[in-house]
Amino acid sequence: MPTPNDLFLRACRREPVERPPVWMMRQAGRYLPEYRAVRQKADFLTMCHTPELATEVTLQPVELLGVDAAIIFSDILVVPAAMGMALTVDEGIGPQFADPVRTLRDLARLRDVEPEDGLRFHLDALRMTRGALQGRVPLIGFAGAPWTLFAYMTEGKGTKQFAVSKRLLFADPTFSHTLLGRIAENVGRFLVAQAAAGAQALQIFDSWAGSLAPREFREFALPYLARTAQIAKTAGVPVICFAPGAGWALGEIAEATGCDVLGVDWHTDPAWARGVADATKRGVQGNLDPCALYASPADIRARTEAMLAAIDGPGFIANLGHGILPDVPVAHARAFIETVQAWDSRRAHSAAQAAEVGR
Amino acid sequence: MPTPNDLFLRACRREPVERPPVWMMRQAGRYLPEYRAVRQKADFLTMCHTPELATEVTLQPVELLGVDAAIIFSDILVVPAAMGMALTVDEGIGPQFADPVRTLRDLARLRDVEPEDGLRFHLDALRMTRGALQGRVPLIGFAGAPWTLFAYMTEGKGTKQFAVSKRLLFADPTFSHTLLGRIAENVGRFLVAQAAAGAQALQIFDSWAGSLAPREFREFALPYLARTAQIAKTAGVPVICFAPGAGWALGEIAEATGCDVLGVDWHTDPAWARGVADATKRGVQGNLDPCALYASPADIRARTEAMLAAIDGPGFIANLGHGILPDVPVAHARAFIETVQAWDSRRAHSAAQAAEVGR
Repeated sequence: MPTPNDLFLRACRREPVERPPVWMMRQAGRYLPEYRAVRQKADFLTMCHTPELATEVTLQPVELLGVDAAIIFSDILVVPAAMGMALTVDEGIGPQFADPVRTLRDLARLRDVEPEDGLRFHLDALRMTRGALQGRVPLIGFAGAPWTLFAYMTEGKGTKQFAVSKRLLFADPTFSHTLLGRIAENVGRFLVAQAAAGAQALQIFDSWAGSLAPREFREFALPYLARTAQIAKTAGVPVICFAPGAGWALGEIAEATGCDVLGVDWHTDPAWARGVADATKRGVQGNLDPCALYASPADIRARTEAMLAAIDGPGFIANLGHGILPDVPVAHARAFIETVQAWDSRRAHSAAQAAEVGR
Repeated sequence: MPTPNDLFLRACRREPVERPPVWMMRQAGRYLPEYRAVRQKADFLTMCHTPELATEVTLQPVELLGVDAAIIFSDILVVPAAMGMALTVDEGIGPQFADPVRTLRDLARLRDVEPEDGLRFHLDALRMTRGALQGRVPLIGFAGAPWTLFAYMTEGKGTKQFAVSKRLLFADPTFSHTLLGRIAENVGRFLVAQAAAGAQALQIFDSWAGSLAPREFREFALPYLARTAQIAKTAGVPVICFAPGAGWALGEIAEATGCDVLGVDWHTDPAWARGVADATKRGVQGNLDPCALYASPADIRARTEAMLAAIDGPGFIANLGHGILPDVPVAHARAFIETVQAWDSRRAHSAAQAAEVGR
């Protein structure tokens, strides 16, 4: 039995750590040759739906790169699919729903999900992965936030402009609030079920938070992110809220959601994020620009150390500020991880403690 | 001879105005049936290259909607095209360069542009439009900022990830700085030529500023935006810098570029933008979310008034926070414009003056 590495969970609780834990969003992904080998045997959705395959790729970055947490391989769109929307993921096109929902009438087509029924494959993958990990590192479950899922469900596909989804917010707020509320309940239940199936922390991705201006973010995204997080919190494990593009709202997200850890995107100044984390007593996770992994390993080390110097402190979890890109060399990901793992956090923590005492 | 409307130019200089001037980015665009009628006769690039057609659509929003400024119909990609890159704009695909530049060697293919030679069509359109306007409203010229053009020129097309262009910043800074510097000189010269051809103000669009984290924005975008603006300023007309997605940098943009007016995107809190404008003594232009024009006319009025209450004051120019979308009803655009034109700015201006005196 390997020694358990609980750095990640201690950081989630703002407990002292010797060095920051590190993992990477999309760490089970195409930049790994071992992932691509599995992906050649099965398409993306089949991988999500097959617990053995999901478990295999979830473990890869733990075993190959030594990251300090695993995150279950799945997709945020499994929830709308389980609610009855026909999901396809085509190479080069991305995910699509053949039958977007855009009216109150369309909502009658959606069903509420019993996770152990409609999302059993995801929960089985968590159980299988948790067993295979044997406590080596903690396992993270996740789901998409209501606004982000709303955008996919109404657009029917990825978008740059959000013209359909945002038109609905402005032109049909009744429909919008109804659908957002329904998604929040379903996602919240799903997150609780993930904790029951073995997830030791839960991350909520509001990937398209940045598509909303402050006023609409506060009306249509934040309340439903908060509702989802509040349901998730009843499971008793740490909750991470990540709303890329809404860095300005970090403080409001901390207050409204009651989350344990604030995810920070790469747009956000890391020193500023540290300030919000301390002011709100939350953990903080992020935020190297994934494109910085295109630099040379020596440059990656320097950039990672600059980030660490700005953001390390109580509750810090090192990560990228967005998912790792598919064409990044593995050696470059390794340079990032190793730099974090060589960093000594004790000075940052004792400085923070001294500041606490001094207050 | 109609009475000249110089509200826009007075606002650019932070002079008192009775009400804010208003225009809309992409106001000569597909939401207008009269624009679509012209567009049916000619493709997008032909319209750019034919001064009679460019003039016709530039005048449409002035004549149909009564906006307080005209902006010449053209495209930011005419500069890379004039530098020797083969540009195509296909329906549904968007603009593409067949031969992206990605190495120092590729740069040998690019030529420096003599505006009255390679960009004469754009300057002729300015001259023709200025004549046709007969002083009714001021005429704005524009160009793309170096980082935004760099991204198009290296990607070869639009992108969500900026993986090619940002990889170059991180992996080949020598190439990147060389190309950015060269673009800045060419765009700067083009802007000066636009003023000589009749443009009474110049707007620089750094449309993809939001793709960079603060550190890279400060290294690769801001210095070249600043260089471009400084060259443009020698023409003696007001310069507007618009860097959507970099609202956090408004103060730095004011300092570095010496611009007269700060463009503000729809992500940015309008009250905060007003604060930056007053602190830096600049004009400020924006920033209603273009998607807000999907709301009902009554709701558009309320949202526009909320924005005006937050941001009106010295140097304010009402606009959207991004280009108007093609499927917005004309009546909704009209509701926005009429709400601004019915607004009384005298209170905001005298409050600002009182605050000045009180300091």
